[in-house]
Amino acid sequence: MTTALVHIVMGSQSDWPTMKKAAEILDQLQVPYIAKVVSAHRTPDRLVDFSKNAADKGCKVIIAGAGGAAHLPGMVAAMTHLPVVAVPVQSRTLSGVDSLLSIAQMPKGVAVATQAIGEAGAANAGLMAAQILATSDKALTGRLIDWRARQTEQVPEDVE
Amino acid sequence: MTTALVHIVMGSQSDWPTMKKAAEILDQLQVPYIAKVVSAHRTPDRLVDFSKNAADKGCKVIIAGAGGAAHLPGMVAAMTHLPVVAVPVQSRTLSGVDSLLSIAQMPKGVAVATQAIGEAGAANAGLMAAQILATSDKALTGRLIDWRARQTEQVPEDVE
Amino acid sequence: MTTALVHIVMGSQSDWPTMKKAAEILDQLQVPYIAKVVSAHRTPDRLVDFSKNAADKGCKVIIAGAGGAAHLPGMVAAMTHLPVVAVPVQSRTLSGVDSLLSIAQMPKGVAVATQAIGEAGAANAGLMAAQILATSDKALTGRLIDWRARQTEQVPEDVE
Amino acid sequence: MTTALVHIVMGSQSDWPTMKKAAEILDQLQVPYIAKVVSAHRTPDRLVDFSKNAADKGCKVIIAGAGGAAHLPGMVAAMTHLPVVAVPVQSRTLSGVDSLLSIAQMPKGVAVATQAIGEAGAANAGLMAAQILATSDKALTGRLIDWRARQTEQVPEDVE
Amino acid sequence: MTTALVHIVMGSQSDWPTMKKAAEILDQLQVPYIAKVVSAHRTPDRLVDFSKNAADKGCKVIIAGAGGAAHLPGMVAAMTHLPVVAVPVQSRTLSGVDSLLSIAQMPKGVAVATQAIGEAGAANAGLMAAQILATSDKALTGRLIDWRARQTEQVPEDVE
Amino acid sequence: MTTALVHIVMGSQSDWPTMKKAAEILDQLQVPYIAKVVSAHRTPDRLVDFSKNAADKGCKVIIAGAGGAAHLPGMVAAMTHLPVVAVPVQSRTLSGVDSLLSIAQMPKGVAVATQAIGEAGAANAGLMAAQILATSDKALTGRLIDWRARQTEQVPEDVE
Amino acid sequence: MTTALVHIVMGSQSDWPTMKKAAEILDQLQVPYIAKVVSAHRTPDRLVDFSKNAADKGCKVIIAGAGGAAHLPGMVAAMTHLPVVAVPVQSRTLSGVDSLLSIAQMPKGVAVATQAIGEAGAANAGLMAAQILATSDKALTGRLIDWRARQTEQVPEDVE
Amino acid sequence: MTTALVHIVMGSQSDWPTMKKAAEILDQLQVPYIAKVVSAHRTPDRLVDFSKNAADKGCKVIIAGAGGAAHLPGMVAAMTHLPVVAVPVQSRTLSGVDSLLSIAQMPKGVAVATQAIGEAGAANAGLMAAQILATSDKALTGRLIDWRARQTEQVPEDVE
Repeated sequence: MTTALVHIVMGSQSDWPTMKKAAEILDQLQVPYIAKVVSAHRTPDRLVDFSKNAADKGCKVIIAGAGGAAHLPGMVAAMTHLPVVAVPVQSRTLSGVDSLLSIAQMPKGVAVATQAIGEAGAANAGLMAAQILATSDKALTGRLIDWRARQTEQVPEDVE
Repeated sequence: MTTALVHIVMGSQSDWPTMKKAAEILDQLQVPYIAKVVSAHRTPDRLVDFSKNAADKGCKVIIAGAGGAAHLPGMVAAMTHLPVVAVPVQSRTLSGVDSLLSIAQMPKGVAVATQAIGEAGAANAGLMAAQILATSDKALTGRLIDWRARQTEQVPEDVE
Repeated sequence: MTTALVHIVMGSQSDWPTMKKAAEILDQLQVPYIAKVVSAHRTPDRLVDFSKNAADKGCKVIIAGAGGAAHLPGMVAAMTHLPVVAVPVQSRTLSGVDSLLSIAQMPKGVAVATQAIGEAGAANAGLMAAQILATSDKALTGRLIDWRARQTEQVPEDVE
Repeated sequence: MTTALVHIVMGSQSDWPTMKKAAEILDQLQVPYIAKVVSAHRTPDRLVDFSKNAADKGCKVIIAGAGGAAHLPGMVAAMTHLPVVAVPVQSRTLSGVDSLLSIAQMPKGVAVATQAIGEAGAANAGLMAAQILATSDKALTGRLIDWRARQTEQVPEDVE
Repeated sequence: MTTALVHIVMGSQSDWPTMKKAAEILDQLQVPYIAKVVSAHRTPDRLVDFSKNAADKGCKVIIAGAGGAAHLPGMVAAMTHLPVVAVPVQSRTLSGVDSLLSIAQMPKGVAVATQAIGEAGAANAGLMAAQILATSDKALTGRLIDWRARQTEQVPEDVE
Repeated sequence: MTTALVHIVMGSQSDWPTMKKAAEILDQLQVPYIAKVVSAHRTPDRLVDFSKNAADKGCKVIIAGAGGAAHLPGMVAAMTHLPVVAVPVQSRTLSGVDSLLSIAQMPKGVAVATQAIGEAGAANAGLMAAQILATSDKALTGRLIDWRARQTEQVPEDVE
Repeated sequence: MTTALVHIVMGSQSDWPTMKKAAEILDQLQVPYIAKVVSAHRTPDRLVDFSKNAADKGCKVIIAGAGGAAHLPGMVAAMTHLPVVAVPVQSRTLSGVDSLLSIAQMPKGVAVATQAIGEAGAANAGLMAAQILATSDKALTGRLIDWRARQTEQVPEDVE
Repeated sequence: MTTALVHIVMGSQSDWPTMKKAAEILDQLQVPYIAKVVSAHRTPDRLVDFSKNAADKGCKVIIAGAGGAAHLPGMVAAMTHLPVVAVPVQSRTLSGVDSLLSIAQMPKGVAVATQAIGEAGAANAGLMAAQILATSDKALTGRLIDWRARQTEQVPEDVE
C-alpha cells in the first residue's frame, strides 16, 4: 500500500468542495494523499492527535483549509515540524478576508504557507505540496515541469 | 488563600501592557485573578494543559488576549466550558483588524466574548469578567453598580 | 411559570431569522428565555425601559442583535450591569463589517460580549449566555459539557 | 443673553481638540452655541435628558462627535426631531473607520448628517450647522456667502 | 404652483430606484420637491448650472446621490451655500464603500450631510431634508414629530 | 518661450511636497510643465476655467493630484478631452484609501489614469505623462528609454 | 492592412467579457486594435515576447486587464516604454479590491494608468487609449470630442 | 564551497531590513543561502534570468519579498518549479495590505507560500524554507525540532 505523503485536513465537511481542488492536482501529479475533517474548535483532541502524529505516519506535507476565524492551519503548524500549506476557505459573511488574515498573519516562530482564498488557493495548495515534495524527488520534478508546460500550452492566444 | 476566579492569559509577554488594563479593573472590583503567558503557537502543550484544567483549579472566567492571527482565545474556548472573554491586541502592521477578525469570526459551536481592539478592550474584558461573575454574586453586583455610578459621576459636563 | 433568564432583543423583526439561532441553542440547553424587538433608534423609550428593568424581571444575561450602525447592544449595556452578549447582524450593503465594528469597538467602561457576524454568531450568543449562567449552575454545566461532547462526536472524520 | 442655536456634544473630553474646530467655524459665522460632554455609554441619563430637551431650550441644530463604536450621534437623533450633524472622531486603533461606519450606516427612519473623519469633519460640522440655520436666516446666508468667497480668494494659484 | 423646496439630483437614471426612497419620505411629510439627473462627469455644464441657480429657484435643501467615485454631492456643495444631503449609492463592484468614502471624506471648507449607503440612506436623506426645513417651519415640525411617533408605534414588540 | 506640455494641478498647496515628485521626473525627461493649485471644492470656477482651456493653451497631458474625497482629477477629466493622469495624495485619517477609491472608481464614459498613493504615484504620474507624449515624440522616446535603462543599471544586485 | 495602434491583452479568456468593453469603445472611435490572451503567470515567455516587441509592431498604447494578484499590467509596463492602461478585473472572492491594489500600487519608476474595477474600467481603458493617441491625432481628437458631446446629450434630465 | 540551498531575493535594497530576518533564521538552522536584489519592475531581465536558472545553480527553495504592488514572488514562481516562499513587505501608505493581497491572491496554476506582513513574515519565510528542505534532510529536521523546542522553553509563564 502506498503511504500518503500529503495529508489534507479541513475544518468542516462543508470545506470539501473547496479543498478537493487540492486533491485533484495531487491526483494529476500522482502524489498519494489522504483527506479528513479535523476541526480545531469542535475536535481539539483530534487536532492534537493528528498534528503530533502526522510525521510518524509518513506524511511529508500537510494541507489545511478553514474559513472565518480559521485556526486550523496555524494550530497544526504549532504541533508539527512538517510544512503546512494553508487554504483560506471563502467565508459566508466576509468573503474570506477573515480567513485570509486569520491564516496569513502568523506570529514569528510558527509558519504556514498561505494560498489564495477559495478554490484557486486550494488547487495551488496541491501544487505547492507537490513542489515541496519535488525538492527531493526527481520523477515528481519531471511531472511538475510537464504539468506546467501543458498548462502553458493550454492558454490560447486568441480571445473568444 | 483566595482562589483566582479569573485567569488572564496572553500570547506573549509583549501583550501585558495591554492586558494589565484587565487586571486593573479586576483589582478595582476586588475580583481575584492570576495572569500568565500561554502561547497557542509557541506553547501548544501549555495551551492544552491550561484550557483543560482551568475549571478544576476554581477558575470561573478566562480572559485571553492575542494579536495578529490570534488563535489563543478560540483555542482555549475549544477546550473548556468556561466563558472566554477575548481581547484583540493591536498588531504592528494591521492595527488589530487581523486580531479582531481572527477572534470574532468564530464558527458556530465554540463561542468567545470579543472585546474592542487594544487597551479599551482589555479593560472591558476585566469588566465583562466581573459582570459574568456578578450574575451569581450579590456583593460583586453591588460593587459593579457602584463602579459604574462613579464612572458616570466622573464624566464632567463642561469641556476644557 | 419559569422566569426567563435570558432576554433576547433585536433591532428589528427582520433580525429574527438570524437571532432565532440563539433561541435554538437555548432550547437545546434548556435555558428559559424570551425574545422581543427593541429598536435603539426607532423605540428609544422602550430601549431605556427594557435596559433598566431587565435585572428586576429576573433576567441574568441579555442577548442583543442589530445590523448596520448597530447601537442596540452597546446602549443596553450602558443601562444595565447584566452581561450583554452582542450579535452583529449581516447588513445588506457592507456584509456586516459595519455591524461588527459598531458593536465591538466599545469604549473603556461599558463592555459587550461580541460574537461573529450573522447566524453563527447568533448561535454562539446562545451558547455564551448558557456558559455565563453555567458559572453558577452545575446542572447547566453538565448539559453544556454534554452538548459540546455531542457536537464533537458529530464531526465525521471522513470527507464526502 | 443670546440663546445657543447650536449645541455641540461629544462623547468625551478627549474629543474636544477635534470638536472645537466646529466651534471655531461657528464663531467666525457668528452663530451662538454651547458645547458639553454627553457620553452615550457612560452617561445614558444625561443623553436622554439632553436629547429630549434640546429643542425646548431653543436649540435648532445639534452637532455630535464620537469615536470608535460611536453611538452618540445616532442615539441623540433617535430622541429629537432636530437635525443632528455627526462627526466621526479619529479612533486610536482603526483611524476612524469604525467611527465613520458606526455613524454613517444609520437604519431607515432616523437620520444623521455625517461629516468626514476628524478635524476637517468637525470644521465642516460647524459649516453645515450654519448652512442649515441659514435656510431661514438671510443675514447668516450673507455671512456664509462671504465666508465661502474669502475661502476661495485665499487659495493661491501658485505653488510653493 | 408650489415651489419645490427640495431638489433631488442623481448621477444617473439608474440611481432613481435608490433615490426615490427620498422622494417617498418627502411625499409623506408633504414637502414639495423635484427630481432630475445631473451627472458631475457626463454633464458638467448642467452641474454648474444646477448648483449655481438652485437657490434662486427657491430651493432650500439639495439631496444628491451618486455611486462609485461619487463626485456629485461634493461638487454641488462647492457651488452653492444651500445644505446638500448626500446619498452614497450602492456600487456594483465595491458595495458602496467607494461611494461612501468619496462622499464623506470632504475637505475642510465644503460640507455635505452624508447618509447611509443605499436605500436606507436615500430615505434618511428625505428625512434629513425635512428636518432641516422644519427648523423654521412649525407645521412641518409637527408632521415630523407625528411621523416619528407613528414609526415608533409601528415597531411590534413581539417577534414572528 | 517653451509651451508647457504638461499642466500639474493639485487641490491644495499642502499637496505640493507629494506632487513635486512628478515635476522632478518631468525635469529629468526635459518635458516642459507648469504647476498650480486648483481646488475642485474651494475654487470651482478656477476648476472649470482651467479644465476647459488647458487644451487651447497648448497643454497635452494633465496631471491632477488630490486627497480624501478627491474630486479634482475626475472633474478635470469631465471638462477636457486631454488625458488626465491622477495621483491619490495620502490622506491624514485613512492613508489614502479614500483618495484612491475616489479617483480610481470613475464611471463609464470619463476616464482618468490613476497612479499609486503618495510620492511613488506622483513620480509615476510624471513618467506616465512623458510616456503619453512620447507616443508621438521620438526624441522623448529616446530619453525615456535611456532613463529606464539608467534606472535598471542603478539597481545593485548585492544587499547591504 | 491597418496597423493595430492599441494592443489589448488580458490574463485569461475569462477576462474577455470585461475587456471587450474596451474594444467596443475603440470601435466607436475608429481606433484599430487587436486583442489576445497573455498570462503573466501561466505564459511568462509570451509575456516577455509581447511586452518587448509591441512597440516594434506599431503598437502605441497597451491595454492590460487582469484579476486577483493582477501582475500583467505592471509586468508589461516593466518591459516596454509604451503607456500601459490597466484594468482591474472583478475577482471572485474579493470583488476586485485585490486586483485594484495589485495594479494601482506600482513602485516609483514603472507606471501604469489604472482604471476602475470591472466593465466601467474596461470601457474607460478604451477611452483613455484613444485620448492618449489623440494627443497627436487631430481627427481622433475630433471624434473624441463628438463622442463625449453625444454622451452628454444622451443624459436625460428627467427621471423615470 | 557550500551550495546555497535557499536564494533570498527582494524587490529593493530597502526591503533588506525586513528580509534579513529570514537570513537570521537560516543562519540559526545552518541552512546555506544567498541574498540579492531582483526587482520585477526595474530589472525584468534579471528577474527572468534569476528565475529560470535558480534550480540549475543548486537552489532548492526561493524566498521572495516585495511591497506595494508586489509582483516579484508571483513572477518568480511563474518561471521556476521550485517552491517560492513569499514575504509581503510592509508598505508606506497601506501598511502592507496591498503587498499581502498582491502576493496571496495568485491564480490557479502558479502558487507561492505567503507569509505574514513584515519582519514576522520574513522570519517565518526562513523557517518555512527550512521546513521544506527538512522533508528530505534528517539532520535539518533534528535542528528544526530543537529550534522549536528551545523557542517553546523560552516562553516564560509569568508576566512582567
